[in-house]
Amino acid sequence: MQPERALPDKEKQFSEWYSEVLERAELVDIRYNVKGFVVYRQNLMRIINLIRSELESSLISRGHQQVMFPIVIPMSYLRKEQEHVTGFEAEVFKIRAEEGEEELALRPTSETAMYPMYALWIHSYRDLPLKLFQTGTVYRKETRATKPLIRGREFFWIEAHDAFENEEQALAQVKEDIEITKEALRKFGLAFIVVEREEWDKFPGAERTFAFDCLMPDGKVLQIATTHYLGTKFSKPFEVIYLDRAGEKKNVHQTCFGPGISRMAAAVISIHGDEFGLVLPFDVAPIQVVIVPIPKEGKEKEIVAKAKEVGERLEKIRIRTLVDTSEERPGAKFYKYELIGTPARIEVGEKEVSEGKLTFFRRDLRRRWKVEESELEVEV
Amino acid sequence: MQPERALPDKEKQFSEWYSEVLERAELVDIRYNVKGFVVYRQNLMRIINLIRSELESSLISRGHQQVMFPIVIPMSYLRKEQEHVTGFEAEVFKIRAEEGEEELALRPTSETAMYPMYALWIHSYRDLPLKLFQTGTVYRKETRATKPLIRGREFFWIEAHDAFENEEQALAQVKEDIEITKEALRKFGLAFIVVEREEWDKFPGAERTFAFDCLMPDGKVLQIATTHYLGTKFSKPFEVIYLDRAGEKKNVHQTCFGPGISRMAAAVISIHGDEFGLVLPFDVAPIQVVIVPIPKEGKEKEIVAKAKEVGERLEKIRIRTLVDTSEERPGAKFYKYELIGTPARIEVGEKEVSEGKLTFFRRDLRRRWKVEESELEVEV
Repeated sequence: MQPERALPDKEKQFSEWYSEVLERAELVDIRYNVKGFVVYRQNLMRIINLIRSELESSLISRGHQQVMFPIVIPMSYLRKEQEHVTGFEAEVFKIRAEEGEEELALRPTSETAMYPMYALWIHSYRDLPLKLFQTGTVYRKETRATKPLIRGREFFWIEAHDAFENEEQALAQVKEDIEITKEALRKFGLAFIVVEREEWDKFPGAERTFAFDCLMPDGKVLQIATTHYLGTKFSKPFEVIYLDRAGEKKNVHQTCFGPGISRMAAAVISIHGDEFGLVLPFDVAPIQVVIVPIPKEGKEKEIVAKAKEVGERLEKIRIRTLVDTSEERPGAKFYKYELIGTPARIEVGEKEVSEGKLTFFRRDLRRRWKVEESELEVEV
Repeated sequence: MQPERALPDKEKQFSEWYSEVLERAELVDIRYNVKGFVVYRQNLMRIINLIRSELESSLISRGHQQVMFPIVIPMSYLRKEQEHVTGFEAEVFKIRAEEGEEELALRPTSETAMYPMYALWIHSYRDLPLKLFQTGTVYRKETRATKPLIRGREFFWIEAHDAFENEEQALAQVKEDIEITKEALRKFGLAFIVVEREEWDKFPGAERTFAFDCLMPDGKVLQIATTHYLGTKFSKPFEVIYLDRAGEKKNVHQTCFGPGISRMAAAVISIHGDEFGLVLPFDVAPIQVVIVPIPKEGKEKEIVAKAKEVGERLEKIRIRTLVDTSEERPGAKFYKYELIGTPARIEVGEKEVSEGKLTFFRRDLRRRWKVEESELEVEV
């Protein structure tokens, strides 16, 4: 039934397995010819969009609002906080300046883009907390070997930047960021540990850094989200000041939170995959159930009609369903949906129609069994 | 009832009106300090997301798939099609190259980023049509006076790039692009004309260009979407070749389509607004109905309970509803939701509760009337 050879062994040859699955499942194309930049293909974007929307909704439901800041940062902004610029300056892509214009950086992260505006928007305690996020790309001139979605020069993430009256409120936000990440990672079926980083390993400019790590199949650790308590380290140089309830001027206490969307996708792909391709958790699968009609001469009509009927029943209960009536052979279809990780497949053939049963296949178990048609919704 | 003065007269002083409404309705902040780059604030992003999702769904339902290409384009790619680079080179932001690396452009548009990959992905007629789109920002060093959302150096749009076997199929796509745009613009309540551009006014590298224009309140024309038949002008230099049904090598025929999300938002804001702020069409309003309780001593509980009950009834029929129970005065709330363009307001006070009626206010008509509570869903 397998039109192509299986993938390399994930545990023994993770790097080879990862490259091949990215290519064969049409997730990423690395042939773009600029170091550290890759093309996100259609099958990846559908996973990315599900991860993105899960995290965005979670932030919005907790009182964050979405904004979009320019991709360029004046170098003078970037240089305002000393530890921060020291941490990033070597990695910055710079845009050629025209005469009389200031040199601009492609943002490596957005603290220094956003906080000059926070200084303009925040006046009194009534403007606090201010909780904003943006979704987009950032740029770092990574000098080490790059790896698609894991280490690149362009990466796709969400950044939430919040301002509070005091340390206590800010630390409560850090705790909430950790909750948001935990909830999402559980939906994506990812095991993780969250630890506070040591002094030498902190985000440049942070007072405290907490990071989420996933263990990858090659034994390496992948950091997929961080949240930082910035204290007043940025609100002092950027003069983000508010009048408190007693009428006194105070610096806001800030936090920033960066769940890495590309890296979460990398972890989902790497941790759940096997030698047949992706194994997507139900919540991040663009197609949750694929229905494959098994043609039989003279019975085509009944079989396709039954397949469509089953599809409609699943859509009614909001399952992302595809009825694949294309002309490919069933074996090629089985192979394809296993490769892209579709969690469940339902086969509908002559026997299924006459017996009133459906053949179920679960991608994670790679096991087939028969189910009474009436039990369809329960089974899914 | 108006805590602040009205806006300038839109018809007589459009520029002043536009700047003030962008600021007061918290749509855009122009104080970012880099020419042509502005901050998209929370109230704008909600409108932008509705426009974006309308267009993206429309493309996906017509067989397009979403991708994400790098933001940098090697200069050698950009220079491959002569008319194209002549049209763009002066406007390109260039990234300082490191020794031994090629100079990179921040993409001004994505033809030359995407088509080298199309050459790798397309082999035979079975790979066609290829219909991909991406949503994101592009960069042009605009030298004229900039205006937020209308003319800037960073703008937010969708680009769809399609490849076909022949001219006929490609022109059918151009027709479909026009249909997609018309449908969207009708939802956004925008009148428009669509015209084929003359030779001198075409997209650099296109065979034929069709553009959508809206008439702005100052009498100027705003181009908010274009679709182009590229013929084989790019598929020749980029060698995007397929084997046809007869086994012969042919160049694909291409189209590209660019609905401008920022510009559509600018048109919605400008065309529908008035001296009290935005007037959003129902489909692009982040909040479609706001419910404002009118407090009365001793009756707070009943009033708030009724407001929430009305809110729940509207949410059940999928209306984006907000019950504003904050401590602000009702007058300040009325002002705020008129400013951000909320299409309808329902007031719930003591009288409304005792009479079983609701007070309705329509933003576009600025008119109030009473409605029987039982008629709520019908009225909305």
